[in-house]
Amino acid sequence: MEYTKPLAKLIEHFQKLPSIGPKSAMRLALYVIKMSENEVRNFSQALIDAKTQISYCKECFNMSCASPCEICSDPSRNRSVICVVSETKDLIAIEKTNEYHGLYHVLQGLISPIDGIGPNDIRIKELLLRINQNDIKEVILAINPSVEGEATSLYLGKLLKPFNIKITRIAFGLPLGCELEYADEMTLAKALEGRVEV
Amino acid sequence: MEYTKPLAKLIEHFQKLPSIGPKSAMRLALYVIKMSENEVRNFSQALIDAKTQISYCKECFNMSCASPCEICSDPSRNRSVICVVSETKDLIAIEKTNEYHGLYHVLQGLISPIDGIGPNDIRIKELLLRINQNDIKEVILAINPSVEGEATSLYLGKLLKPFNIKITRIAFGLPLGCELEYADEMTLAKALEGRVEV
Repeated sequence: MEYTKPLAKLIEHFQKLPSIGPKSAMRLALYVIKMSENEVRNFSQALIDAKTQISYCKECFNMSCASPCEICSDPSRNRSVICVVSETKDLIAIEKTNEYHGLYHVLQGLISPIDGIGPNDIRIKELLLRINQNDIKEVILAINPSVEGEATSLYLGKLLKPFNIKITRIAFGLPLGCELEYADEMTLAKALEGRVEV
Repeated sequence: MEYTKPLAKLIEHFQKLPSIGPKSAMRLALYVIKMSENEVRNFSQALIDAKTQISYCKECFNMSCASPCEICSDPSRNRSVICVVSETKDLIAIEKTNEYHGLYHVLQGLISPIDGIGPNDIRIKELLLRINQNDIKEVILAINPSVEGEATSLYLGKLLKPFNIKITRIAFGLPLGCELEYADEMTLAKALEGRVEV
C-alpha cells in the first residue's frame, strides 16, 4: 500500500533518525498529524533553530550557541583541569553527575584506522594548544572503553606525557547496583585490575 | 546541567512523541544538529506539510490529503465490503497484507466509558449512514481484542444485526511462528474457541 504523500515523506524523515525503524517512524508520523497545528509549527521551528543557532565552542568544541560556550565562560569553573570526551553527549552525561567542575575538551570523534579517522581528524591539535597556552594541572580522559576509545586514550596518554602534568583516566569497574555474578568478564577483569586499597 | 537553549527546546519536542524518553530525545536532538542544514529544513517542512495537508476522508475517515481518499476513490476496490478499524494505523497494517480489497471505515477511537468515550464520540453514526446508503454485503470488524475493543465490537455487532448483512470479525488465535507452549492463556483460549474443521 502507499501512504498519502506528505505522510510518506514525514515517515521517511523520522526513519533517518537513529534507532527509529519503519514501524516507529509510522507511529511518530501519525502522532504528529494528531498534534495541534501550533505544536507542530513549534516543533518544526525548534528543528531549524537547533540546527542554525547551535555551533561549536572554539575553545572546547562543545555544542553551543555561544563561543566560548556556557562552560568555558563560567568563572566558577576550575580552569586548571580539562576533561577530554569524545562527543557532546558524554560531556552532558558527566555534567549530570554534578561532580565535575573543571573544563572540557570534546574530541568530536575517536581514532579509528578502519574508518580512516586518524589523530589529525579529531580535535587533538587543539587540545595540545590549550594545554600549551594555559596553566593546566590535570587532564582527565573520559573516553569509552571501546577499541577506538582505548586506541585514542593510549595515543593521548603518550602524547601528553612530555607536558609533565597529571593525566588520569576515569575508572572502569562494576557499575553500582550490579551484582558480581552478572557482570561480564571484561568488566570484572577491569574491576580487579583497578582495585584500590581500603 | 542546562542544555543550550535551542537544544533544550528540541529535546522537549522530541520527548512529547510517544515512546521517546529523555535519553532518546537527547540522542535524536544531537543527531539533528549533526545533519546537514538542508536535511533539517526538509524535515521541518515535512512536519508542517503532513500536519496542514492531511485531513480525514469524509467517507471513511481515513487520514488523507484527498476526500474521498485514495482507497474510497479507487475503482478497483470491492465497494460492497467495509472493514471497520479503530485507527488509521490499523488500516495501514491491513493494507500491508495485500489481502483485502474492500473499503474501510475508521472509527477514530473505541468505546471506553472510563475515558468518557461513548458510541456518539466515535464514527459509528457515519458507518450506519454508509451501510444505509450503499449496497453493503459484509462488514468486517477488525478491532483489537482489548477491553475497549471487545466493548465496541459487541456494540457494533448488536447495532448492525437488523441490517441483515454478513457481519464478521477477524480471527484471534495463535500467531504464525509462535509455539503453543509460549502462547499466553488468553490467546490459547481464543484459539481453541475459534477452532475450525480440517
